[in-house]
Amino acid sequence: MLLLFQPILYSYFRSSCSWRVRIALNIKGIEYEYKAVHLLNNGGEQRSEDYSSKNPMQQVPSLETSNGDVLTQSLPIMEYLEEQYPSPSLLPKDSIQRAQIRALAEMINSGIQPLQNLTVLQYLKEDQKAEWSKHWIHNGFVALEKTLEKTSGKYCFGDNITLVDCCLPPQVFNANRFKVDMAEFPVISRINEDLGKIEAFKLAQPSQQPDCPSDLK
Amino acid sequence: MLLLFQPILYSYFRSSCSWRVRIALNIKGIEYEYKAVHLLNNGGEQRSEDYSSKNPMQQVPSLETSNGDVLTQSLPIMEYLEEQYPSPSLLPKDSIQRAQIRALAEMINSGIQPLQNLTVLQYLKEDQKAEWSKHWIHNGFVALEKTLEKTSGKYCFGDNITLVDCCLPPQVFNANRFKVDMAEFPVISRINEDLGKIEAFKLAQPSQQPDCPSDLK
Repeated sequence: MLLLFQPILYSYFRSSCSWRVRIALNIKGIEYEYKAVHLLNNGGEQRSEDYSSKNPMQQVPSLETSNGDVLTQSLPIMEYLEEQYPSPSLLPKDSIQRAQIRALAEMINSGIQPLQNLTVLQYLKEDQKAEWSKHWIHNGFVALEKTLEKTSGKYCFGDNITLVDCCLPPQVFNANRFKVDMAEFPVISRINEDLGKIEAFKLAQPSQQPDCPSDLK
Repeated sequence: MLLLFQPILYSYFRSSCSWRVRIALNIKGIEYEYKAVHLLNNGGEQRSEDYSSKNPMQQVPSLETSNGDVLTQSLPIMEYLEEQYPSPSLLPKDSIQRAQIRALAEMINSGIQPLQNLTVLQYLKEDQKAEWSKHWIHNGFVALEKTLEKTSGKYCFGDNITLVDCCLPPQVFNANRFKVDMAEFPVISRINEDLGKIEAFKLAQPSQQPDCPSDLK
């Protein structure tokens, strides 16, 4: 008898990289078990011996597949989901378009998020954090907006939802948190608003996660 | 008559992300035209109107394909090369292994490099630069070393050269530049040394590029 287990997502409600993967899982209709890793409690549960052995970078998300393999890093996890659960698709077949979509996703994934994630903020002085984060999100959004002016249709790349759309709302959430003036970025803002109306995106929001404190819901 | 043009790589000899793509192009035996973008001269040639229109993030590398499409971001460019020039391959067929290799590459691409690239260093105060870069490279290498202890064979993932191997030598070069004690990382060091003996890797080194000043060769 074949036993099928659900994959396990190690996540933190406010982690933008966990949020991306939650969106991708929802779009593809993959049921999963949610295991919360609290990034602040107990000195950061991501630093525990047990979790570190799964994810040596001590970051969320990690995805434990039904075979027990543990995958890390949000974009590689999403590429895995795309290969294993190809429908609905998050990448078209054309190699040039795939590269353009992946590049848009990397503008957020390596161009913005790493500079304002929790680990970096914890290393900065208290009075530097807000200005630092605002600067790098603004810097990346200037480039992203210019690129989206060319690539976007209804969503970031044409009229279908792709990999980069999974990355956009969490980054806009952080932009608002650090008081970036989103009026400068009408294309990003418009797409983010449209994505926010889709069920798969709604259910992935921090406020909908089991580890979201009730006063933040 | 079909005219075939070589792709154009916009590169800077010391840029670690350009270096990754040079390695991948060499491994796959793809001939290309090298166009230097000097990141320091004239206030940074990457900020010129012409180059910014190709790459709004104002970063190298960019790859202009023989059809005139301009691709940006090193990992998406390498994924494109892998799809278009599949042999020799930089990713195996198995989805779990592909995800593991991509995650290793992202540990460098989004976990380390963005925190110590030129744009970030230019934003830091002069007396912060060295300590900042050393801290983040060390932090990432601790996690990378632990992961490579499990995944490595002759190279980073088993005995074949993969995507992550293209990312390793440029990051070790930066580690040495910022005086990270590489004795702490015997697996990374050993693999880096072995990769350095391979022709495709030798030819991709900064000192071999046309824009390397003669006093640095």
